Amino acid sequence: MSKYDLALDRCFSALGDPTRRTILQRLARGNATVSELAAPHDMALPSFMEHLKKLEAAGLVTSQKQGRTRVCALSPDAFGPAKDWLSEQSAIWEARLDRFDEYVTHLTQERSK
Amino acid sequence: MSKYDLALDRCFSALGDPTRRTILQRLARGNATVSELAAPHDMALPSFMEHLKKLEAAGLVTSQKQGRTRVCALSPDAFGPAKDWLSEQSAIWEARLDRFDEYVTHLTQERSK
Repeated sequence: MSKYDLALDRCFSALGDPTRRTILQRLARGNATVSELAAPHDMALPSFMEHLKKLEAAGLVTSQKQGRTRVCALSPDAFGPAKDWLSEQSAIWEARLDRFDEYVTHLTQERSK
Repeated sequence: MSKYDLALDRCFSALGDPTRRTILQRLARGNATVSELAAPHDMALPSFMEHLKKLEAAGLVTSQKQGRTRVCALSPDAFGPAKDWLSEQSAIWEARLDRFDEYVTHLTQERSK
């Protein structure tokens, strides 16, 4: 499997969980400490840390120790590869629908001649 | 968990696998039978069918029996919810970076006065 495929696997899998999406939504609004991120979630800290680890492994989140706290941030262009993949497939799909539309129009015109 | 969250969970999780992404890439180019879809994958048919089932459960693929074969198609606007979620977060994130840029520019101007 290519590096690109592995990166997409990790990214999409990381996005497939509501706790992890909530963390990303929070970080899009600004950096936060682990405790700030964990507060809204009714979850034991080790389980919460597992979610954070997956987001870090997927390259979506970075974290840095500042004194006694750990501050998390959204990675720059975190969503880029996932967005690009989805846009690429949508474009191919839409081009195909356009060609199908043209074909139907052409067929209708031919028949009405 | 809301219906919307569940739909995003299923969609992103379905996208987090290279076999499933290859199936979607193939279907973006046109409908295909199960055998056509399975052919490039070195995988037992039951395992392949599991992947297809996950794509159907996520609302990304539909299939229809035509005589003795089953024809699969990409769902219309299959990638819509996932694309929308990613775009929304990117927009919030970019707006934040813009505000940060403005703040730094303002600070630099204030200091040079």
